[in-house]
Amino acid sequence: MAIITLTTDFGEKDHFAGATKGAIYSELPDVKIVDISHSVSPFNILEAGYIIQNAYNSFPKGTIHIIGIDSEINEENKHIALKLDDHYFICANNGIMSMICSEIAPEKIVEINIHDKIQTSFPVLDVFVKVACHIARGGTLEVIGKTIPGIKPTKHITPFVNDDKTQIIGSVIYVDNYGNVVTNIKRPFFESIQKGRSFEVSARNNKFKKIHNRYSDIVNFEIPEEKRHDEGRGLVVFNSGGFLEIAVYKSNSATVGSASTLMGLGLMDAISVSFSTESMLPKSLE
Amino acid sequence: MAIITLTTDFGEKDHFAGATKGAIYSELPDVKIVDISHSVSPFNILEAGYIIQNAYNSFPKGTIHIIGIDSEINEENKHIALKLDDHYFICANNGIMSMICSEIAPEKIVEINIHDKIQTSFPVLDVFVKVACHIARGGTLEVIGKTIPGIKPTKHITPFVNDDKTQIIGSVIYVDNYGNVVTNIKRPFFESIQKGRSFEVSARNNKFKKIHNRYSDIVNFEIPEEKRHDEGRGLVVFNSGGFLEIAVYKSNSATVGSASTLMGLGLMDAISVSFSTESMLPKSLE
Amino acid sequence: MAIITLTTDFGEKDHFAGATKGAIYSELPDVKIVDISHSVSPFNILEAGYIIQNAYNSFPKGTIHIIGIDSEINEENKHIALKLDDHYFICANNGIMSMICSEIAPEKIVEINIHDKIQTSFPVLDVFVKVACHIARGGTLEVIGKTIPGIKPTKHITPFVNDDKTQIIGSVIYVDNYGNVVTNIKRPFFESIQKGRSFEVSARNNKFKKIHNRYSDIVNFEIPEEKRHDEGRGLVVFNSGGFLEIAVYKSNSATVGSASTLMGLGLMDAISVSFSTESMLPKSLE
Repeated sequence: MAIITLTTDFGEKDHFAGATKGAIYSELPDVKIVDISHSVSPFNILEAGYIIQNAYNSFPKGTIHIIGIDSEINEENKHIALKLDDHYFICANNGIMSMICSEIAPEKIVEINIHDKIQTSFPVLDVFVKVACHIARGGTLEVIGKTIPGIKPTKHITPFVNDDKTQIIGSVIYVDNYGNVVTNIKRPFFESIQKGRSFEVSARNNKFKKIHNRYSDIVNFEIPEEKRHDEGRGLVVFNSGGFLEIAVYKSNSATVGSASTLMGLGLMDAISVSFSTESMLPKSLE
Repeated sequence: MAIITLTTDFGEKDHFAGATKGAIYSELPDVKIVDISHSVSPFNILEAGYIIQNAYNSFPKGTIHIIGIDSEINEENKHIALKLDDHYFICANNGIMSMICSEIAPEKIVEINIHDKIQTSFPVLDVFVKVACHIARGGTLEVIGKTIPGIKPTKHITPFVNDDKTQIIGSVIYVDNYGNVVTNIKRPFFESIQKGRSFEVSARNNKFKKIHNRYSDIVNFEIPEEKRHDEGRGLVVFNSGGFLEIAVYKSNSATVGSASTLMGLGLMDAISVSFSTESMLPKSLE
Repeated sequence: MAIITLTTDFGEKDHFAGATKGAIYSELPDVKIVDISHSVSPFNILEAGYIIQNAYNSFPKGTIHIIGIDSEINEENKHIALKLDDHYFICANNGIMSMICSEIAPEKIVEINIHDKIQTSFPVLDVFVKVACHIARGGTLEVIGKTIPGIKPTKHITPFVNDDKTQIIGSVIYVDNYGNVVTNIKRPFFESIQKGRSFEVSARNNKFKKIHNRYSDIVNFEIPEEKRHDEGRGLVVFNSGGFLEIAVYKSNSATVGSASTLMGLGLMDAISVSFSTESMLPKSLE
C-alpha cells in the first residue's frame, strides 16, 4: 500500500495534523502515514523546501508527499501536484518545490482544479488529502488538474559567484536542531568553482580553511580524552545532504551554545567562500 | 482494524507516549495508533477539549480516543469511557469532554471500575490502554464500568450574552501554533444572536467590523505584491472548526509576531462582540 | 511483523527522523515504526538512557530499538547492537545502555562491523537502519559484528551511600515535561538502605519526610475544593518507573512553575536522603 508523508507548519500541539491523518485513514484504511515534520516555522517556504528535499528520497518510489505550508488558496496561491523522481508532491505553488526542481526536472506538474467549488479554510484536510488518496488509489494527475509548464521560483536557493570565480556568496537556508547552520552551497557546485584551489570560508568573523566530512574529524584522538577541549569548537562540514554547514562540535543551543547562537548566524545571513588566486593546485579539499 | 488516537500532555520528550504505544501494540499488534497531540499544556482541560473536539470527527466512526490529561485517579477524579457520535472516548471525568458534550449528547457514559485494585501512577498505560483494547476487540462499555448520567462540566465553554442581546462576551479558549487566538464563540451561535445586524468585535483595543472566511480575504490582489503591507495585519475569521478567531495575516510568534503576541491576548481573556441597536437589516455577514 | 522504535536527539523539525522512517519502509514495507522520542537534549546520554529504560519494556518481546544519540562513528565511539531482556538495541557505545545494563545483564553484545567501508555522516540512516532491518528479518547479531564482553559505562547512574548507611546522595538524571525532577535513586535500592527507618529527603533547601505513590496523595479531600491550596505544593513520589522524584502538584514550568523552576533543580544537581540513626523501626514507608 502507498505511503503518504506529511510536512507542515501545523506545530506539535494543534489538532491539524491529527485531523489530517484521520481524514486519510477515513478514505484509505490501509495506507501508511509518516510524519516528516510538523515544526516547520510558520509560512517558511525555504525551511520546508530544505526538509522535504532531504527527506523524500529515503522513501520508496511512488510515495506521496503532502506539504502543508502557506496553503490557503487564493488567486496568487494555487494548489499543485507534481511527479518528480518517481515521487508525488502536493502543495501550494508558492516556491516550496523550487529547491528540488532546480536539481531534478519534474515529469509532470498540474494545477489542481477539482476543488473549484470547495470553500475551505483547511485546504490540507479538504483538498490535499483528497488528491493524495486519489494518487494512492492509482489515479493520474491529469484527472485532478490541468498541466502547467513550471512552478513559482523562490529566492535564496542559488549562491552567487563573482565573475572571476574567486568568491562564492551563499546564504543560510536552515538552522538545524543542533543549531548548525546550513547554507545553500552544495558540494558539487563548490567543487566546480574550487577546482582544487585552497579556500577560506567566512561566517561573520569566523574563518575556516578546511571542510570536513565528519564532525569528529576535528578531534585529536591521540590526546587523552580529559585533556581535550573540542566541545564547542567551530568547524565546517558538508552535511549528510551535501550542503556546506557551519557547525559546532557537540553543540546544544540551550546549554553550551551552537553555531547559530555562538556565531550569531541566522536564516538569510551571508556565508562567503574566497578562493586562492594562485594558479590551480592539485585537488586539496579533503 | 480499529484506530486508537492519543491526546495527552506528555510532551514530545518523555517516554510516556512511547510506552503507551508499546503497551497497545503488546495487546493488539494490528491496531493503528495515531497521535493527535502530546503537547497540550500540562493539566490544561480546556486546550485538550478544544483539540479533541476539532480532531475526532475526521476519523472513521468507531475510532477510540484516549485522552491523557490530569488522569491520576482519586476520589474526585474518576475515569470514564463514553460513546458519542459513534466515537469512543476514554479520559478522566475532569471536564475535558464537556465542550463536545455541550453540542452532541453522549449515547452512553460509564465510570470505569475494572481497575479498582490497580495501584498505578501511570493510569494511561495501566488503565486507559486496557479499556481501549477492550473496546477495539469489540467489547462493550457495560463490562468496564457502571453507567453514569452525565459528566463533570467545565467553565468557560459558553459565551455570555446580555439580556437585550446587544453584546456577546466570549473568552479565549485556545492559542494555536500561529499565535491565532480562538474564542468560544461559534458561528451558529454568533449568527443566532446577530440576526443580520452590523457588529464590532473588540479584543483589547483592537476593533473589527467584519468576519472573514479566509485569512487572505484581507489582501487586495489588485495592488502589486511588492506594494502590499498585509503581513502582520489583524483580522477576524471563523476558523475551520467554526470558532471566531482573532488572527494576524502570515503570523509567526517567534519572528514577526502574532495575534497573541502583538495584541497581548492569552487564554481566558475576554473578547466581546457588540451589535448595532438599529432595527434588523438584511443579513450582511459575508 | 517486527516493531522498530526510534529514540533520538533529532528534534521535531529536521528531516532526520522522517528520512530514517523512509529508509526503514524502503527495506521493510510491513514493519511497524514507533517514535519513542526525538526530543532528547542534543548529545545527552543520560536522558536517552532514562527514556529508553522506561519505554522499552512496554513493547512486545523482540522489538528492535534504534537509539540515535551521539552516533557519529570514530575510533572512540563504535556502534553496537545488543540483546537484553529479549529486546534488541542498536546505538553507539557511548554509555546510553549502561543504565539498563546495570539492572539487567545483556545476553549478547556485538560491535557492528558491517559498515567498515561506509563513509557516512548520517549513521542512523546508513548503518542503524540496515542493522535493524537485518534483525527484523530474523538475522542474528553474530552476522553484523564481533561479540564484545561489555559496554562503556556512564557516570551518575548510581547514587552514593556513606559508610554507616545514614545517607544516600543521588543526582538529578532527568527533568520531565511537567518539570518534575527525577533522581537516580530507585525504590528497591532506597528500601534496602532505609530498612524501615524514618528519613528526610533534601533538595536544596526543601525537605520532605514522606514519599508518596500518587501526586494527589497530598490533597485533603475533606476540605472543600475551593478552599484547598494544593496546586504548586512540592512533594516526593516514587514515579511510575520506580525512581524517587521531586514533584510539584499540577505543575507547569511555563505558568505556575514546577519542581525544576520553583526549587531551582536541574540535571546533575544533588538530592540527598538522611536516615534516622535511631535503632531500626517497623517499616514506616507508606
